[in-house]
Amino acid sequence: MKKPSHIAPDGSLVMVDVGAKAVTERVARAESRVRMSAGAASALREATLPKGDAFVAAQVAGIMAAKRTSELIPLAHPLPLASVEVTFEWTTATEVRVEATARTNAQTGVEMEALVAASVAALTIYDMTKALDRGIVIDGTRLLEKRGGKSGAWSAR
Amino acid sequence: MKKPSHIAPDGSLVMVDVGAKAVTERVARAESRVRMSAGAASALREATLPKGDAFVAAQVAGIMAAKRTSELIPLAHPLPLASVEVTFEWTTATEVRVEATARTNAQTGVEMEALVAASVAALTIYDMTKALDRGIVIDGTRLLEKRGGKSGAWSAR
Amino acid sequence: MKKPSHIAPDGSLVMVDVGAKAVTERVARAESRVRMSAGAASALREATLPKGDAFVAAQVAGIMAAKRTSELIPLAHPLPLASVEVTFEWTTATEVRVEATARTNAQTGVEMEALVAASVAALTIYDMTKALDRGIVIDGTRLLEKRGGKSGAWSAR
Amino acid sequence: MKKPSHIAPDGSLVMVDVGAKAVTERVARAESRVRMSAGAASALREATLPKGDAFVAAQVAGIMAAKRTSELIPLAHPLPLASVEVTFEWTTATEVRVEATARTNAQTGVEMEALVAASVAALTIYDMTKALDRGIVIDGTRLLEKRGGKSGAWSAR
Amino acid sequence: MKKPSHIAPDGSLVMVDVGAKAVTERVARAESRVRMSAGAASALREATLPKGDAFVAAQVAGIMAAKRTSELIPLAHPLPLASVEVTFEWTTATEVRVEATARTNAQTGVEMEALVAASVAALTIYDMTKALDRGIVIDGTRLLEKRGGKSGAWSAR
Amino acid sequence: MKKPSHIAPDGSLVMVDVGAKAVTERVARAESRVRMSAGAASALREATLPKGDAFVAAQVAGIMAAKRTSELIPLAHPLPLASVEVTFEWTTATEVRVEATARTNAQTGVEMEALVAASVAALTIYDMTKALDRGIVIDGTRLLEKRGGKSGAWSAR
Repeated sequence: MKKPSHIAPDGSLVMVDVGAKAVTERVARAESRVRMSAGAASALREATLPKGDAFVAAQVAGIMAAKRTSELIPLAHPLPLASVEVTFEWTTATEVRVEATARTNAQTGVEMEALVAASVAALTIYDMTKALDRGIVIDGTRLLEKRGGKSGAWSAR
Repeated sequence: MKKPSHIAPDGSLVMVDVGAKAVTERVARAESRVRMSAGAASALREATLPKGDAFVAAQVAGIMAAKRTSELIPLAHPLPLASVEVTFEWTTATEVRVEATARTNAQTGVEMEALVAASVAALTIYDMTKALDRGIVIDGTRLLEKRGGKSGAWSAR
Repeated sequence: MKKPSHIAPDGSLVMVDVGAKAVTERVARAESRVRMSAGAASALREATLPKGDAFVAAQVAGIMAAKRTSELIPLAHPLPLASVEVTFEWTTATEVRVEATARTNAQTGVEMEALVAASVAALTIYDMTKALDRGIVIDGTRLLEKRGGKSGAWSAR
Repeated sequence: MKKPSHIAPDGSLVMVDVGAKAVTERVARAESRVRMSAGAASALREATLPKGDAFVAAQVAGIMAAKRTSELIPLAHPLPLASVEVTFEWTTATEVRVEATARTNAQTGVEMEALVAASVAALTIYDMTKALDRGIVIDGTRLLEKRGGKSGAWSAR
Repeated sequence: MKKPSHIAPDGSLVMVDVGAKAVTERVARAESRVRMSAGAASALREATLPKGDAFVAAQVAGIMAAKRTSELIPLAHPLPLASVEVTFEWTTATEVRVEATARTNAQTGVEMEALVAASVAALTIYDMTKALDRGIVIDGTRLLEKRGGKSGAWSAR
Repeated sequence: MKKPSHIAPDGSLVMVDVGAKAVTERVARAESRVRMSAGAASALREATLPKGDAFVAAQVAGIMAAKRTSELIPLAHPLPLASVEVTFEWTTATEVRVEATARTNAQTGVEMEALVAASVAALTIYDMTKALDRGIVIDGTRLLEKRGGKSGAWSAR
């Protein structure tokens, strides 16, 4: 049976030693969904219609946070990220989907980097919309796909 | 009609000037839910049974991230946080609920601090559990309650 | 005769103690000019015509850097910034002027915050344009105006 | 015709994927000039005559900022810097020239690291001299030379 | 009987809520001692005789780390530091004593800020001397004095 | 005769250029001792008996600080840490020993990373115990062992 990766058999914490793992190309893709009221969504659409600056700020926030993942997640390894992408789409009238992709050549994967990018980008949209609707929900933050490393490729169904 | 707070009428970004707002006591409470497979949940429970260290790491990660909210969210104001609390509970056999509360005496609210704390704590649980289940989902990241400031008190239904 | 503020008579460094200074409203405005070749300037204009995202990224970079001024400038004091604004204009066919304004209610001024915002925003434009012209120059980084505090108001001629 | 490196054809932002680029030795050298009034310059010289501590603080600030370039410049890649040098010289009675050199073995260049080091060192001198002369100007922040990488060597005329 | 301040009766962690405490002037003074071999000490003295730059770097490192205490110590509160001082003296032929003083007007004390400043300054001296003597020891990191706040003044004997 | 590594013959500072050094596996182990009064020690033991959360927070603080060593120590190089371990033991009734081990594959050693981890973990224990005993002392912060790199293996006697 598999074990949580950072927890020793006695329940104590360990930062996994990745020193012996191969440096390979690794990619991870994650998403997050920001759900808001119809009123908030139409005000956000309208406010961002003349210029999409709010989404650019969220994109930049996601990229910058991904670069600092190892400062946020206690047992994550510092990684030389090769690239981070963050994109947005309105999937319904009231939902913005954030998708983030992280890439590296390293001894460990970039799932957390992709998830941090998606989460912080979603929180930034939240920050700009919260005056319109205090009931906004960020749902479905999850991994979509990973490639590279010993455990190989994986995709969400 | 209300407007998104950091977006000017022409669609450009503005950091709201809070210089003229009163310094009042402000509180915000937020939550996030980490949903995993039955197998992952029982492995996580078992691994954390001898000691709850994984949850303490997530608590510390949430508190430390809350203190750095203004470094993560582009238009958030730096705030002298008076306290941050992060707690965890298993709400079902396969769901951990994270709750975060932030307090300050400041010119602006601490909703983003509470949400960042809940999100980063949830991502830290994710990080420790991801080897067990790549399909974990962080759902329902949302504000539960806020108090203080000109807009007054608000609670999620 | 006046003395440099952080240098003691024996030449050693001191972080000025601002503990006894009054908390007052303080504002500082600074600018920086990014000068590039005609070719680079027209490629940058054309590339940013469909959307101004490059300038939004520079704006966000300037705002975020201003919030971290005390981490960059060794003897600067941590400050609760009330707002930071960063704007851009093409002053000639080949020059982008960056203007940054910082505000606070604090025991010390925000000149360095405004200058850091302008400088980092200018460096971000540089970063996006450097493949077009390695000879870009950032000129004229300077204070335009300050208000508040014991030394009062000052404007550049 | 060349394109700005982080801007897609539709005007949106992209962090360039450097994953396929070769790891080579890369060097960049940049400068910045701090220009002040005759009075400020002679007060600064006199204050730093007994000990050069103010310039050491500026050197340290430049080096430390270079190491955090990817936290400041939104689309810059995190890099394992091999070394950073920052030096100062009085080029005229009223001008201090800052020169910074950054080196790495990496998939992308260190121009931004050298420019950030020079800029933050110049801003630190500014910070120590601002009480003497509010009209100080930081001029001529520019790349002097780069070597390594696919685009090869380049020097300013 | 007194209780550790951040540990609840059930052994769990709490960030103390300082929101109801008075804003008062607070000072803390701490020290750390760097002990090295006679050979290392005389090489360090000789190397720093022409210029004391190594000690200035250690001073700057201590001041900058003090400003980031709340990022390093999980349950420490962010504080608007009014000043930080770091000084050095050779107390014996082989021992450098570091003394750090932190001041603030805040709802909580600055003991940790003073201790972080002293520790990081001592570690910086260590970093510069480690090639001479791998057996260097940092001893006696402790609080010397605190003033302000409800618990009042305290000095080490 | 050996020279301090970051100090040039004229006394000025240099960040050592590690660009030509081989990438090898490197390990460093360091320790720090937290000494407190009998009363504080027994209160700390009792408070941490139900759950060891205070020590987990100190472990996490040490690991996270190690990852940021190059932001704290001015002339330290950024390093891709492969792992960091931090452990605690009561060596006497009144002394907690902290041990930290850092590993990397890099061009330079990880002694500073291990020492920063041990120091910040010790300071975190101090933070949680300071209300019980203002006279706590952190003693004996030192390197225990290093392996890898041109200078080879070394152990404290």
